[in-house]
Amino acid sequence: MEIQLKGDERIDQLMQYDLEIIQSPSVFSFSLDAVLLGDFAKVPKHDRARVVDLCSGNGAVALMLSQKTKSKVMAMELQERLADMAERSIKLNHLTDQVAMIHSDVNHATEHIKKDSVDVLTCNPPYFTVTEKSRKNPNAHLAIARHELHLTLKELMTVSSGLLKTKGKAYFVHRPERFLEIMDEMRAADLAPKRIRFVYPKPDREANMLLIEGIKQGKETGLKILPPLFVFDENGDYYPEVRRMIYGNE
Amino acid sequence: MEIQLKGDERIDQLMQYDLEIIQSPSVFSFSLDAVLLGDFAKVPKHDRARVVDLCSGNGAVALMLSQKTKSKVMAMELQERLADMAERSIKLNHLTDQVAMIHSDVNHATEHIKKDSVDVLTCNPPYFTVTEKSRKNPNAHLAIARHELHLTLKELMTVSSGLLKTKGKAYFVHRPERFLEIMDEMRAADLAPKRIRFVYPKPDREANMLLIEGIKQGKETGLKILPPLFVFDENGDYYPEVRRMIYGNE
Repeated sequence: MEIQLKGDERIDQLMQYDLEIIQSPSVFSFSLDAVLLGDFAKVPKHDRARVVDLCSGNGAVALMLSQKTKSKVMAMELQERLADMAERSIKLNHLTDQVAMIHSDVNHATEHIKKDSVDVLTCNPPYFTVTEKSRKNPNAHLAIARHELHLTLKELMTVSSGLLKTKGKAYFVHRPERFLEIMDEMRAADLAPKRIRFVYPKPDREANMLLIEGIKQGKETGLKILPPLFVFDENGDYYPEVRRMIYGNE
Repeated sequence: MEIQLKGDERIDQLMQYDLEIIQSPSVFSFSLDAVLLGDFAKVPKHDRARVVDLCSGNGAVALMLSQKTKSKVMAMELQERLADMAERSIKLNHLTDQVAMIHSDVNHATEHIKKDSVDVLTCNPPYFTVTEKSRKNPNAHLAIARHELHLTLKELMTVSSGLLKTKGKAYFVHRPERFLEIMDEMRAADLAPKRIRFVYPKPDREANMLLIEGIKQGKETGLKILPPLFVFDENGDYYPEVRRMIYGNE
């Protein structure tokens, strides 16, 4: 298939999933965060689930999820330029029958996806609160993807819970320094935190990411702290678990 | 010094600190939890701090803290039988000038220790909520030490915050399944969670303990998730960090 690349775009491989994903350093590139989230989310294999990825960027997580299920996957992205990249990646991977990109503000999600209908939801949201500096970021694409200019944590949790069915599962990747807020906003939106995995750049460093699973209207008991995930070993090489997430079983 | 042992008591060594501690399998033995807490707590070395260990049991944590500071350490324990063991251990280690055991209900702590006066506070509290089974535990000593029969999490946090100075630090060891409650009760008592370390029995298992530092009237930003602590390696041997906590640098 002939897919047109724009500007500084390139095609990257995600070998575990046999996917090709259009990236652009100046607009948006998925990072390890997306790979970890795509791996962490549990998706039923059958074709009857409703799966949604919010803040989908260039669609990397939605594409990964499509490889774990026969169900349809809906990706939602605010930025037209990124949604366009995602649409071309969907075509590039011959997944137009399974993966749909919805170009929309996540705050308007229920105009496109029925409330209380989603089984599994994922999101790799903007991590940072809005500061003077983030408003002045000369690269608007990156600023919107990284800073809460159009979607706050509270809004994300409210929208996520609204879309999910009772007992539907939400998966997020975020930063440990916002852990208390994440807990607060999840619980305020009736998403019970159930499983947390902290991600450490190296074994002797503080965590710099966390993966969290919440269940809509779940009981607030039995929170599990999963085994830690280390990214790099002392030689700067990926740990086997991370290498497998990226490259598959070589 | 001649110290009398009662019933099934024995004297255990805590070699890192060159301490001898009276233990009793039927009444109370300190466990790894206490060793981890004693190691985790940061205590100023000088002699001007006020250091308190609540739910002190046989005094193991208070004795460990005394080896990290020249300041006085006050231990508080509800159960007379345990407070008596602690007092004999204090004598055994020639620490009667530095460590004092207060035999009191922690809920009455301010009858013995001035409010807003403590620099560093530690507690290895009862982990479990009260159930029918815990009320019927035939061993009252162990039931009180393990179940919240006389001290709830909310009471512990309220008392701890009351005793601490502004910016005083509290250190707790507890169970991950109660993590959300711990966060809630700390924050309700104006103890800002600052540093958390999860403890895993083995690298591929879920966490079964957590160590947490809170600061009285601290800011609720910049929470840090410290590197994970693994207890046993795949051969069932202690990891070097844990071995050092118990045996010191052999």
